[in-house]
Amino acid sequence: MNDRVARSDGRKDWSTWPRYDAAVLGLRNYWYPATWSWKVRSKPVPITLLGERLVFIRDHGRVYALHDRCAHRGVPLSLRAGSLGQRGCARPEFPGTISCGYHGWTYELATGTLVAALTDGPDSPICGKVRIRTYPVEERIGIVWVYIGDLDPPPVEADIPEELLTRPHTKGGRISIREGNWRYAAENGFDEAHPRYLHRNSAWLMRQQIPGWTRSGVKMLEDGPWLAYYATEVHRQSDYPGLGKWQPQRWWKQKGRGGARVAIRLPCALRVNQFDFAIYSWFMPQDVHHHRYMQLAVKFTSGLPGWLFRARYWTYIRWLNQVLFTNQDEVMIKGMDAPPERLFRPDLSLVAWRKLCEGARGGEAPPPDTDERDLATLTNNYSTPI
Amino acid sequence: MNDRVARSDGRKDWSTWPRYDAAVLGLRNYWYPATWSWKVRSKPVPITLLGERLVFIRDHGRVYALHDRCAHRGVPLSLRAGSLGQRGCARPEFPGTISCGYHGWTYELATGTLVAALTDGPDSPICGKVRIRTYPVEERIGIVWVYIGDLDPPPVEADIPEELLTRPHTKGGRISIREGNWRYAAENGFDEAHPRYLHRNSAWLMRQQIPGWTRSGVKMLEDGPWLAYYATEVHRQSDYPGLGKWQPQRWWKQKGRGGARVAIRLPCALRVNQFDFAIYSWFMPQDVHHHRYMQLAVKFTSGLPGWLFRARYWTYIRWLNQVLFTNQDEVMIKGMDAPPERLFRPDLSLVAWRKLCEGARGGEAPPPDTDERDLATLTNNYSTPI
Amino acid sequence: MNDRVARSDGRKDWSTWPRYDAAVLGLRNYWYPATWSWKVRSKPVPITLLGERLVFIRDHGRVYALHDRCAHRGVPLSLRAGSLGQRGCARPEFPGTISCGYHGWTYELATGTLVAALTDGPDSPICGKVRIRTYPVEERIGIVWVYIGDLDPPPVEADIPEELLTRPHTKGGRISIREGNWRYAAENGFDEAHPRYLHRNSAWLMRQQIPGWTRSGVKMLEDGPWLAYYATEVHRQSDYPGLGKWQPQRWWKQKGRGGARVAIRLPCALRVNQFDFAIYSWFMPQDVHHHRYMQLAVKFTSGLPGWLFRARYWTYIRWLNQVLFTNQDEVMIKGMDAPPERLFRPDLSLVAWRKLCEGARGGEAPPPDTDERDLATLTNNYSTPI
Repeated sequence: MNDRVARSDGRKDWSTWPRYDAAVLGLRNYWYPATWSWKVRSKPVPITLLGERLVFIRDHGRVYALHDRCAHRGVPLSLRAGSLGQRGCARPEFPGTISCGYHGWTYELATGTLVAALTDGPDSPICGKVRIRTYPVEERIGIVWVYIGDLDPPPVEADIPEELLTRPHTKGGRISIREGNWRYAAENGFDEAHPRYLHRNSAWLMRQQIPGWTRSGVKMLEDGPWLAYYATEVHRQSDYPGLGKWQPQRWWKQKGRGGARVAIRLPCALRVNQFDFAIYSWFMPQDVHHHRYMQLAVKFTSGLPGWLFRARYWTYIRWLNQVLFTNQDEVMIKGMDAPPERLFRPDLSLVAWRKLCEGARGGEAPPPDTDERDLATLTNNYSTPI
Repeated sequence: MNDRVARSDGRKDWSTWPRYDAAVLGLRNYWYPATWSWKVRSKPVPITLLGERLVFIRDHGRVYALHDRCAHRGVPLSLRAGSLGQRGCARPEFPGTISCGYHGWTYELATGTLVAALTDGPDSPICGKVRIRTYPVEERIGIVWVYIGDLDPPPVEADIPEELLTRPHTKGGRISIREGNWRYAAENGFDEAHPRYLHRNSAWLMRQQIPGWTRSGVKMLEDGPWLAYYATEVHRQSDYPGLGKWQPQRWWKQKGRGGARVAIRLPCALRVNQFDFAIYSWFMPQDVHHHRYMQLAVKFTSGLPGWLFRARYWTYIRWLNQVLFTNQDEVMIKGMDAPPERLFRPDLSLVAWRKLCEGARGGEAPPPDTDERDLATLTNNYSTPI
Repeated sequence: MNDRVARSDGRKDWSTWPRYDAAVLGLRNYWYPATWSWKVRSKPVPITLLGERLVFIRDHGRVYALHDRCAHRGVPLSLRAGSLGQRGCARPEFPGTISCGYHGWTYELATGTLVAALTDGPDSPICGKVRIRTYPVEERIGIVWVYIGDLDPPPVEADIPEELLTRPHTKGGRISIREGNWRYAAENGFDEAHPRYLHRNSAWLMRQQIPGWTRSGVKMLEDGPWLAYYATEVHRQSDYPGLGKWQPQRWWKQKGRGGARVAIRLPCALRVNQFDFAIYSWFMPQDVHHHRYMQLAVKFTSGLPGWLFRARYWTYIRWLNQVLFTNQDEVMIKGMDAPPERLFRPDLSLVAWRKLCEGARGGEAPPPDTDERDLATLTNNYSTPI
C-alpha cells in the first residue's frame, strides 16, 4: 500500500500563528462595515459579527449599536411579535431609546442604560441599575461602521481604505452571508494562484487571459496598511514534463498584464484592482461556520462617468463578478478543510497574511519580519513542512 | 467603553432553585394530560413526555400506556411498516396486547409482560421473562391522564383542577408542540408583566385595555394547590420621567379590571380567568427544547348556553386566543435565553413559582415560605442580584 | 409500579463481541462493491465508504480510486466549480491524472503522486514531494470493487461470491443510501424471524405464505465463507395459549417451503435464494448513521431466458422487492436502537454473525466455535442475559 511510503505530511495545525489560529471568530479591536447606511432606519436591524449579536437602529439621524440581548430574560432586543403572532422587529417606544418587545424594558441608545421598565411603572427600582453593552458606530461613504473590541477605538478612518475617504467615487455593492469560516474566505481572496485554475472558465474572464503561473513576492504597500502580492515573472503557457502544455491559449482572449493587483489589510479587507475600477471585499466573521461578505465595485469618478459606471455595474458587473465569479470561490470555501495542509510556493501570500494577523491590534508586538527567509523556504526546501 | 463600568450582573444561573434548575425534563411523580380521549383508539398513539417515549392504546374501552420501546432491539412498539414500506402505526394482533411491528413480540397491555414472541412459536422460552414499563392511566373530562414518576401515584383527581371534576362545563381545546423548554413556557404563562407589552397589539385584546402596570403580590389560593398573582395597585397610564406617557389610551377599548386572574399549579398547569370563561393551559416537557402545549377554553355551563359557548369558541376564541395570541408568546419563548437573567419587581411571580417547584412531590420538604422577604428584596434592593 | 419488579435486563452493550462493537465504520481489509462499472467514466465519482471519502475515475479503460482530498487545502479532489458558480465534478486536465479544481494540483492516478502544481509552473519544487492515498480497484461482473484496508489485499475474487464469477448470469441492480448504521442493516438482513411478521403484508409476498415460526440452526456453508441459517422444524400456524391462533392462513397464498435460503458473509454481503433466482445485498458502511445499500437480483442463465428475466426484473422484481419490500426493512433499521437489547431464540443467527465478525481479517484468531453452547443458552436459559 502506497500510504506506507515515508513522506512529509505538511502542516498539522496552525500553531505557527497562534493569534490567527485562535481567531476563529475574528480579530477584535477593529472597525467593521456592518451594512449600508440606507438599511438602518427606525426599525432595529439585527446583525451578528465576531460571534456577537448586535442590533442597529437610527434615531434623529444617528445610528446606534447595542448588544442584541435584553438583560432581563435574554430575548433579542430586536425581536417583536406582530399582532398575528409572526416574528417582527421591535419599534422604539420613545425617541432615543429601544424597548424590548417582551416586557418593554427600555434602554437609552447612547449609553445602553435601562431608563424604564414600562410594565413595572415609572418608579421601577431597577431603572438605572442595568446597562447593556453599546458599540461605537460611525457612518462613512454610505456604510455603517461598528467597532468591536476591548480597547479604546481609534478613529474610524484608521480602518477605512484612505482613497475611499478622500477621492470622489461611484460604487455598487452587495452583502451576503456565506458558509465557511472567515479565514478560508480571506485566504481565498488573497490567494493569487487559484484564479488561474478555479476561475479559468468563468464568464467574468471570458475576454481576458490571465497568466498560467507567476513567480511572485509579497510586500507591504508604501508603508501603508496594505499587504500586496506582486509578480516577478509571468508565464502564459508552459510545458509540463510528461503531461503537456498548460494553460491552453484562447485566440479570443486578451492577454492580461501581470503585476500586483491584489492587496489585503487588517482586519479582513481585500482590494483587487481591475482595468478601470476596483473591487473591495470584507470577509467578516459571523459565527464559526459563516461569514458576512460585503462587496464593493468602485470607480474613482463622479458626474456622468459615474452614472455610466453605475449602468455598467447593474448591467453586468454585479451579475458576472459579484455573483457568478465569487460563487466559484464559495464552492471551494465551503469544501475547504484545513489544517492539515501542504502549502506550495504561491502560498507565500497566505503565510504573509497570517503573519500580518499575528501583529493585529490588541496583541503583543508582531514577530520580526521574516518574509525573506520564508520566501527562501517556500522556494527551495519542501522537504520540511512549511 | 461602557462595559468596563462596574455594575451588578444579575443572576448567572438557577442554582438558587436546585430542583427547578435540574428539572430540564420536568417534574416527575405527577399526572399529566397526554391527549384527548377520542384520539386514543385501537391504533397506538406515540407521545413523548418528560423525555420518555410512551405509546397509548385503547382496548375494550380502557386506555393503556407503555414505554414505546420493544425490549428486543429497541424499535418503538408503535412503529409499523405499511405494505408499501411507508411508516405507520402497529395494530394489536390479539385483544389486550400490543405487538411490535418488527418481530411480533406481544406484550400484555395491563402489565407490560411479554406474553408471546410470535415468530418464535408458542413455546418460546422468553415468554414471561421480559417486562416493559407500564404507566398508570386514567380518563377524566375527556382527557387521557398519565402518571410519570417513581413513587406510588396519588389518585388522578389530585392533579386535576377540582372545578373541572365537580362542575358541569363546556370546553374547546387545542394541542400543539412548541419550541422552547417547558420552563420558559410556564414562566411566560405566569408572568403578569409581559401581556401589557407583548400583547398590546393583539387582536384578542382589541376591545380591552389592560393596565399599564400594577403593584402586585403572590399567594397560594385558599389553601389549594394554586399559586395566584394579585394586584394591589393598578395604573392605566403614567408619566415616565424624561420619556413620556405610557401606555397610550385608546377610546375604543374597555378598561380592564385589575386583580388576580392568573394562577399556576404543579406540575405545569396554568389558569387564566376571562370575563365569563376560563383558560387552562398545560406546558408539558417533551424534550429539552420542546414542550407539549394543551389549551382548554372552559365555560362552567351546559345545555343551550354550552352550545352557544361552543359556537363562540369555534368562531373566534380558538383563532384569536388559542392561535394568534399565544403565537406571540411562542415568539418570545423561542427567543428566550436565560440564565443569565436580571429579574425585576413583577418577577416576584416567577420567584414564587420556582420556589413552589422546589417543594414538588418526590423531593425533600420545601424551604420555609420566604415570600415576604423576597417581596421586600424585589421592591427595595436591586443592588444585589435577585 | 411494575418497573420495580426484579427482572433480568438483557444485554447492556456489545462488549461480548469487541471487534463488532468497534466496527461502527465497518470491517477493514476487504473488497467492497463501490458502484456499477458503467457509472465510472472520465468524470470523477465521489463515494464515501467506511467513513473515508474516495474518488473514482476511469482512464484509458481502467478505474482508479484515490482519497478524495487534495493535500494542499483539503478540498475534495472531485469538486469543481462550474462556470456559473454551481458545484460540479472536476475533469482531468491530462491523461492518467486528476487535477484539483481549486489550484490545479495534479496527481497521478496510479500512484497518487503529485506530478504538477499547474499554477506554480513546471518547476514547482513541490512536485513529487506529496502523495495521496490510492486504493486498489478491480472490475468484475460489471461492478467496481475497491479494497479498503491496511494489510496487503488478497485477490478480489476472495471477496466476490464465487458463483457470480464462474457461472453465466443475468442481473438487475439498485444502489441507494439508507439511514441507520450498517450493522443494523446487516443484522436485519440475516435475521430470519422478522420477515414472518414485518413483511407479512408485503405486496412481494402476496402469493406466498412463509412459515409462522421455525426451529433453526446456523452453520458455515460447505467450508465456504457463507454462514447460513437452516430450519430444523417448520410451523405454519400454532395456538398461542391465552391469545389465539397465529399466523392466519390465506387460501390465496402458496405454502412456502422452509429450509435454508439466507446466507451472509464477510464483510457485509447477504444472499437470499428465491424460487428461481437469487438476491444479493451489500450493506456498506458510509458514515456512522448511513449505509450504502447495493442490491442485485441474479438469475443464472443467459441468452433468451436472460432477457426474459430482465423483463421480469424491470416489470415487478425491482419495484415490489428491491423498493417496496426493503422499504419495510428500512423503517425498522431507522427505528432500531440497540444495545441495550434482549435477544431471543431466532437471534442465534445474529449471535453467529457477530461471532463471525470477530474473526474478520486483520484481527486476532477468532474465538473457538461455541455455536452449540450458544444454541443451548438461547433455547434453555433466559434467566441470564444472552
